[in-house]
Amino acid sequence: MLYIIGLGLGDENDITLRGLQAVKECQKIYLEYYTSLLGVDPTKLSDLYDREITIADRDSVELEADEILKHAKDGNSAAFLVVGDPLCATTHTDLILRAKEQNINVQVIHNASVMGAVASCGLQLYNYGQTISIPFFTANWKPDSFYDKIKYNRNGGMHTLCLLDIKVKEPDYEALSLGKKRTLPPRFMTVNQAVEQLLYIEEQRNERAYTSDSLCVGLARLGRSDQKIVAGTLGQLQSIDFGAPLHSLIIAGDVHVVEKEMLAQYYI
Amino acid sequence: MLYIIGLGLGDENDITLRGLQAVKECQKIYLEYYTSLLGVDPTKLSDLYDREITIADRDSVELEADEILKHAKDGNSAAFLVVGDPLCATTHTDLILRAKEQNINVQVIHNASVMGAVASCGLQLYNYGQTISIPFFTANWKPDSFYDKIKYNRNGGMHTLCLLDIKVKEPDYEALSLGKKRTLPPRFMTVNQAVEQLLYIEEQRNERAYTSDSLCVGLARLGRSDQKIVAGTLGQLQSIDFGAPLHSLIIAGDVHVVEKEMLAQYYI
Repeated sequence: MLYIIGLGLGDENDITLRGLQAVKECQKIYLEYYTSLLGVDPTKLSDLYDREITIADRDSVELEADEILKHAKDGNSAAFLVVGDPLCATTHTDLILRAKEQNINVQVIHNASVMGAVASCGLQLYNYGQTISIPFFTANWKPDSFYDKIKYNRNGGMHTLCLLDIKVKEPDYEALSLGKKRTLPPRFMTVNQAVEQLLYIEEQRNERAYTSDSLCVGLARLGRSDQKIVAGTLGQLQSIDFGAPLHSLIIAGDVHVVEKEMLAQYYI
Repeated sequence: MLYIIGLGLGDENDITLRGLQAVKECQKIYLEYYTSLLGVDPTKLSDLYDREITIADRDSVELEADEILKHAKDGNSAAFLVVGDPLCATTHTDLILRAKEQNINVQVIHNASVMGAVASCGLQLYNYGQTISIPFFTANWKPDSFYDKIKYNRNGGMHTLCLLDIKVKEPDYEALSLGKKRTLPPRFMTVNQAVEQLLYIEEQRNERAYTSDSLCVGLARLGRSDQKIVAGTLGQLQSIDFGAPLHSLIIAGDVHVVEKEMLAQYYI
């Protein structure tokens, strides 16, 4: 049996009773640790579970799926732990499909995801259009495919959730050129960086999908005790310090009365 | 302190450790029991919590909010338990705003929601447009405001999640005319009824927002061990027996390759 278990958003205590029970049944436990991050050190998890945990980064999930699945065969059970929900922001379809090919039973144990927790700001989940991901721009690579999605959402009155880029285990090419294999420290896009990139693309495209006066909401560390939510114009959010990662951004569409009432507590 | 705690989708074991800990701190515990329903009897919850539970139906949440909040004042703590997540499909903004007016601290403890768990079928959450609610039609009341939303979503290539109506504690007007105050048994819209109503509205509007050949996914009892997911055309789903409530329906937009692979396991 392969359990794919959502850990929720905060710390080790956000696992469900069902999730904890499943972990305790498993001989081998992997923690997916590349697309999102918990508010605590993984050792807190091993302490709670009283089990060793293997950290699985992007390479090991994609390249060593068979190694993971080996532990879920022949009457054994393995757990694959995912921050948030296993199927929402990150979708572990590849691992699920491979498991099914090998006739391994898969059980998904759901939990809270950032894609639901954004409702905390008062903009109702019903009224969101498609979600976009904003990647870190480089000197030569400034993709803007998200622009048309925001435009379509806003023309239909819908809000847009922007998930912000995370770079973990990037190769350090400078070190590599000196013959050293090294990775760069992880990078997490801030609300400020996202705003800067959005305004840059609006300037290029100039179709007024949004402007620096558009109502937006910046969110940081959702679901944790120190979560921060600030509503204001896109321009205003550019200079707000949201603190430690993870950050997300919402570009509002039409805002209804009841949404306004909830949002009011978060205005700059 | 007022804790608003998501219970997740399955049974008593889907509460998080954090949620359980909060419940145990509370002198008074309410269970919201009108917009959704758990797979278990509420007594299972009181047994697990070792606490009495007060069932709060629509009347008591809306009319007796002050009664609920009274128990969250003066150093006391109350818990308000909600199936799924407290802010996703049902949004308890009214209770939160009233609590804040009275200077009561509110802590929301998130959990899995049907709005995230629908990702189980393989259609990725990123690609959903606005969510619609389909109400039970009556002889004289057949609202179709959801039609334009489906149309806009599909024109943009997006999937549409349809949440299906729940009627709990409807007044029994026939009994009332005989001088008896009684409520009707609860009703939960099935996928079949939703399909029938959708096809009726398409026939009236005839703008081909969707047809009986449109790809759809019916889902029942998501997050429980007996969840059922079937993909097929709208017409095909009309005759599938999805069993006990709750049911939901997805009208697919553009389906990407990786979505197709996951969805394949659920085709009729």
